[in-house]
Amino acid sequence: MTIRTPLTEKFGIDYPVFAFTPSKAVAAAVSRAGGLGVLGAVRYNDAGELDDALTFMDQNTDGKPYGVDVVMPNKVPTEGTPENLGELIPEAHRAFVSRVLDDLGVPPLGNDAAHDAGVLGWLHSVAQSHVDVALRHRPVLIANALGSPPPDVIAQAHDAGVKIAALAGAVRHAVSHVDAGVDVVIAQGGEAGGHTGEVATVVLVPEIVRALGGSVPVLAAGGIGDGTQLAAVIGMGAQGAWMGSRWLTATEYSDDGGSRAMQAALVEASSQDTVRTRIYSGKPARLLKSKWTDAWQADDAPSPLPMPLQNLLVSEAHQRIAAAQDPAVVAMPAGQIIGSLDGVVPVADTMAQIVREYREAVGRMRATLGD
Amino acid sequence: MTIRTPLTEKFGIDYPVFAFTPSKAVAAAVSRAGGLGVLGAVRYNDAGELDDALTFMDQNTDGKPYGVDVVMPNKVPTEGTPENLGELIPEAHRAFVSRVLDDLGVPPLGNDAAHDAGVLGWLHSVAQSHVDVALRHRPVLIANALGSPPPDVIAQAHDAGVKIAALAGAVRHAVSHVDAGVDVVIAQGGEAGGHTGEVATVVLVPEIVRALGGSVPVLAAGGIGDGTQLAAVIGMGAQGAWMGSRWLTATEYSDDGGSRAMQAALVEASSQDTVRTRIYSGKPARLLKSKWTDAWQADDAPSPLPMPLQNLLVSEAHQRIAAAQDPAVVAMPAGQIIGSLDGVVPVADTMAQIVREYREAVGRMRATLGD
Repeated sequence: MTIRTPLTEKFGIDYPVFAFTPSKAVAAAVSRAGGLGVLGAVRYNDAGELDDALTFMDQNTDGKPYGVDVVMPNKVPTEGTPENLGELIPEAHRAFVSRVLDDLGVPPLGNDAAHDAGVLGWLHSVAQSHVDVALRHRPVLIANALGSPPPDVIAQAHDAGVKIAALAGAVRHAVSHVDAGVDVVIAQGGEAGGHTGEVATVVLVPEIVRALGGSVPVLAAGGIGDGTQLAAVIGMGAQGAWMGSRWLTATEYSDDGGSRAMQAALVEASSQDTVRTRIYSGKPARLLKSKWTDAWQADDAPSPLPMPLQNLLVSEAHQRIAAAQDPAVVAMPAGQIIGSLDGVVPVADTMAQIVREYREAVGRMRATLGD
Repeated sequence: MTIRTPLTEKFGIDYPVFAFTPSKAVAAAVSRAGGLGVLGAVRYNDAGELDDALTFMDQNTDGKPYGVDVVMPNKVPTEGTPENLGELIPEAHRAFVSRVLDDLGVPPLGNDAAHDAGVLGWLHSVAQSHVDVALRHRPVLIANALGSPPPDVIAQAHDAGVKIAALAGAVRHAVSHVDAGVDVVIAQGGEAGGHTGEVATVVLVPEIVRALGGSVPVLAAGGIGDGTQLAAVIGMGAQGAWMGSRWLTATEYSDDGGSRAMQAALVEASSQDTVRTRIYSGKPARLLKSKWTDAWQADDAPSPLPMPLQNLLVSEAHQRIAAAQDPAVVAMPAGQIIGSLDGVVPVADTMAQIVREYREAVGRMRATLGD
């Protein structure tokens, strides 16, 4: 039994569940399970690696549709190589990061470790290369996490028959996305993981649905992980849910190289264990609270740098933290829904549970009307 | 056509809409319209005035049920008269308030104005007197906004056949309320107006519903103002919605002496125009953003004092601001839902709209299952 909205019909999927994930294995599993897996491209500094990941998607989704998420600022931020951007980072910031990692017992990288250059996907040139690569595959949707994509990118996608989605944390962003020609607006509440605004999902979703007046379909994001929450946002007029953090504890994620320490930390965490801070990228993003985020909130911590410098500053720290596999020291975007993650579970089981809970929720609502 | 949940059956009301309001006229109108009007008692420093307000409720609700909201800390805070508590307020804080009011052009009170002593309802002794007065009338529910009420108060209410509700901003609060003998838990998300936590409604409600496992009914609060949001929280397992800010623009509120300047400011405001701050009471509370809240966020602003001192500090300021009737300078608890308030509307019209939107939302959800 499917859950149908106009948007599931448009994309030919069984359930209005859109799964944003950095893991190709998770994205593919969601698509196979009847949702739309959306692979986050931002971590692929090398276009060839993204090309390989999308070839995996093409081959492991049983012909079902999938999407790609890029981070393409409409306003071009500072461009440059990691080396010359690095010169803009104050020495005191570097010293703070170095001292905190030592204090937290995070070992240096081994001599043979490749030093990551930081997330360059936030650079316009890199995001553009992600779009070019994606269009050589068969995504049905390209989503953009930071503002409306530039007009030429929208035209490029539309020429290829690919829809464009964009995240909005406020009504005015949603309206400007529609003006720019975006096909799907993702109304993302402040309880979401990663880059996020301050207005909560329950307020933002009906606001944006009303403001767009049905001209463009709306997905709801932020704080959604179960079928009752999917029912809630559909009741508020969304045509589906965009879920991210929900998939961080998928079995497929750790099997695909995702951190088991991070999964252990998420399973332990309550909904109060996140913090919205600029330390990940330079823009406000909600992260799992850990000794790492605590250190940046201490009185002696410097202010985070603007995007893209902050991520360059902390990129080696992120690598060291990932390698150390300490659940108490994690640097991970995560939404408040993590309080409901209570185990490492295969994607198909989670999807089945969401569908079951959704049907129960609809039953509860029908009962209130005596149906 | 009613909207029925076990809780509406228990209280004998037509709609699962619980309206918290400082206005007796609004509370009575909600009860007459088929919801449960809940009168906020905290502003009544004088028990006799609360007694009069509840006599009004008895006489103006067509025999329908209503509730009373008190603010009774389980842990007794600093007690004392306004005079001796006032000695604990630093002079620099008083000077800051005085300077800000002058800068914002808020005139002093006239010589004949009674100087309000501040909100003493946060003192245990005053809240206890509110409960004593309430039990001389016919409320069906006494709600408490700060923690579980003390055991003797719960026993006192239960002896009188009155149910006790308590607000919870986190799962552990909900569990401790149930352990204390509370009859209804109000799961309040961080997008709510007034005292509030940080976990959003869409995350908190199913978390608390799950944690309580049906042992005690849950109401949802925070960001709820329309019928689609009522549907959302019922889908998530709540048995009704607790709405506060929604009623601040009721026609009955300004007719009952509520500030028209405040209503004008709320109608203008977007969902981004609130701020969570300790300046109102000493505990974090979400307020309408205004020149007054901006002043407290400036670099030269002092840190707010603890409860109950902060409210004593600003109580005359609140009176001056209210008297000045300037929509740009407002000191008002308000949730993010204010972005959806687009006019001053009678309670009965709002209730009819909520019911209509609710039915449409349920229809939308049924359609997804092909019903």
